[in-house]
Amino acid sequence: MKIYLDHAATTKMSKSVFDEMSKCFFDDFGNANSSHSFGRKAVAHLDTSREIIADVIGAKPKEIYFTSGGTEADNWAIKGLFLANRGKKNRLIVSAIEHSAIIETAKSLSKLGAEVVYIYPNSDGVITASSVQKEIDDNTFLVSVMYVNNETGVINDIKGIAQVCKEYGVLFHTDAVQATTLEKGVNDLGVDLMTISAHKMSGPKGIGLLYVRDGVTISPLIEGGSQESALRGGTSNVPSVVGFACAFKNNEQTIKDRTKKLVEIQNYFETKLLEMGFDIKINGKNRVPSISNITFKGVKASVLLTRLDFLGIAVSAGSACTAGSLEPSHVLMAMGLSEEDAASSVRFSFGEENTLEEIDYTLNAIKGILSGLLHK
Amino acid sequence: MKIYLDHAATTKMSKSVFDEMSKCFFDDFGNANSSHSFGRKAVAHLDTSREIIADVIGAKPKEIYFTSGGTEADNWAIKGLFLANRGKKNRLIVSAIEHSAIIETAKSLSKLGAEVVYIYPNSDGVITASSVQKEIDDNTFLVSVMYVNNETGVINDIKGIAQVCKEYGVLFHTDAVQATTLEKGVNDLGVDLMTISAHKMSGPKGIGLLYVRDGVTISPLIEGGSQESALRGGTSNVPSVVGFACAFKNNEQTIKDRTKKLVEIQNYFETKLLEMGFDIKINGKNRVPSISNITFKGVKASVLLTRLDFLGIAVSAGSACTAGSLEPSHVLMAMGLSEEDAASSVRFSFGEENTLEEIDYTLNAIKGILSGLLHK
Repeated sequence: MKIYLDHAATTKMSKSVFDEMSKCFFDDFGNANSSHSFGRKAVAHLDTSREIIADVIGAKPKEIYFTSGGTEADNWAIKGLFLANRGKKNRLIVSAIEHSAIIETAKSLSKLGAEVVYIYPNSDGVITASSVQKEIDDNTFLVSVMYVNNETGVINDIKGIAQVCKEYGVLFHTDAVQATTLEKGVNDLGVDLMTISAHKMSGPKGIGLLYVRDGVTISPLIEGGSQESALRGGTSNVPSVVGFACAFKNNEQTIKDRTKKLVEIQNYFETKLLEMGFDIKINGKNRVPSISNITFKGVKASVLLTRLDFLGIAVSAGSACTAGSLEPSHVLMAMGLSEEDAASSVRFSFGEENTLEEIDYTLNAIKGILSGLLHK
Repeated sequence: MKIYLDHAATTKMSKSVFDEMSKCFFDDFGNANSSHSFGRKAVAHLDTSREIIADVIGAKPKEIYFTSGGTEADNWAIKGLFLANRGKKNRLIVSAIEHSAIIETAKSLSKLGAEVVYIYPNSDGVITASSVQKEIDDNTFLVSVMYVNNETGVINDIKGIAQVCKEYGVLFHTDAVQATTLEKGVNDLGVDLMTISAHKMSGPKGIGLLYVRDGVTISPLIEGGSQESALRGGTSNVPSVVGFACAFKNNEQTIKDRTKKLVEIQNYFETKLLEMGFDIKINGKNRVPSISNITFKGVKASVLLTRLDFLGIAVSAGSACTAGSLEPSHVLMAMGLSEEDAASSVRFSFGEENTLEEIDYTLNAIKGILSGLLHK
């Protein structure tokens, strides 16, 4: 039996996405920058896809810039605005619980002269608007706070932070990669820049986007041809863009039903888990239904992961992008967990294809493993 | 009838590439950074693909860094070495006939303090080792000269330039994106960094690589997770990497037969074209057999393109990445063509699936169009 509970790391591509992409591999394979009929077919796919996605997030098509994924979009947002503000403003405010795509980029910019300020979450794991407000000054060129944390599933106060940034005239970027069950209307949220990735919503890997509000000046990260309004060079990855648009539309259309199902799964999992009577803590409040981050007191997460994996159950400690690392989660530590508790925490992330039977199997597996390890 | 003579812009994906990729969309969809069974399957594909490609170019697997394409790899090579040499050396030598991915990046770095020197080709379109040698000084951190020019198909003296760079202790990067019919052994060529793209060799769009010789220090362009030896963050695009490896292997195995076929096509096309008796010039010498760049004296390339397109024949003026531009080709101008001649030049680029019947049809079409336009 194989049970996949690591949807925050990546998801399986849906059949409809594959079918849409397949068209562009063969029949409509042209370079979207070519002016001949093959190119026009490709650019038509590109335009339609851009319109579909723009429509979902309430943006103008020209505000959507395709990238090779969430990490590139995050890098571009931060570095692109740093460069665009060079010699003017150099203070960057990011939350301490960001994905490594933001954290590592911020660290790198601090070596190039940026003044980087990290905002810590409250004990619920939430980054609040007031904590951001305290750090904004006239020198600030950007605030970047993720919509949903990838390790805990905690939802940050994006609207509140956007409001504060607007008041102070500071640009606001959000990494919305994990917000697959939430509305992402850019005007409703009030964000100036937003990162989204396809492979977290049953779309292809290697494609993402950066939303950049009309009027925001950003320097390019990857330069070359005139693609993406001359702000992101490279032959347009039309098949993947088409797959992205399809996945995005599917995701939008199923948000209600999917959320309902995920809420049921998460509630069932967490309730039964707590009922087992082990020393267990659920990390974070105000969370999306797709992620449960659990501290198993006194148990090494790596041991639990290995044993669950042996039983065919795929979960993770922290994010996949830091999975190789031996460091305890920077997210959980920032929330105030001890190093030991952070190293005892496991992320379970659910998808709509998961069943309650799979959850039961997983709960039983956990019970067996913990009983053996803890001599309950 | 549809005839595709724009293989230098992009190629149709081969069926075998598609089949290989398809496995990783569904069965083996895991995140290659995950430590569970789904992740291990993904990382096995990644490792195997890296080994296949490394083997083809005679590199170590760890010297292969996957990127989102040739443009990212070019940007990374130039910017990554600029950053790594910050405060030490700041002279960058590039050829004047590079792809926009190099030219635009170089321009951008000159705004950040790099001293950029452009090397011009001789009248055959070739960048020679001696012209590079003249410009190298102690302040030079990188020489970047493309293997094959994307507009003319001219092959530059990569071995000679590599030799000069080695003598002077300067790093040498080559953009080998268009060298699909040439051997690309990194040790034989003597390059320190090399860019390759999949979609020019019947592979997927959105995937490329930067070869970086072991021991070369380069700063990352896209930061985040520990992927690609922590030098290129972002969830590994396993399906595309697998497709890339398959395309690369296919390309290698068919080089001889494909070259033979392309030589036949190119010779046939150029001979018949010259026999027509119009004022026609073939641009560049020492060319790959996949590209013919032709000046049709007194004819606007845009008019010829439009009429050929109307007849179902896809060709281009300059590269696809600059197709939207109204500027005459910087490559042809650098070779000494007048602005008028440059604006009268068309690139025909062949693929192995092209037939002599298609070439005949194209020649007839050209004859008809030119006769009408030029009142021969």
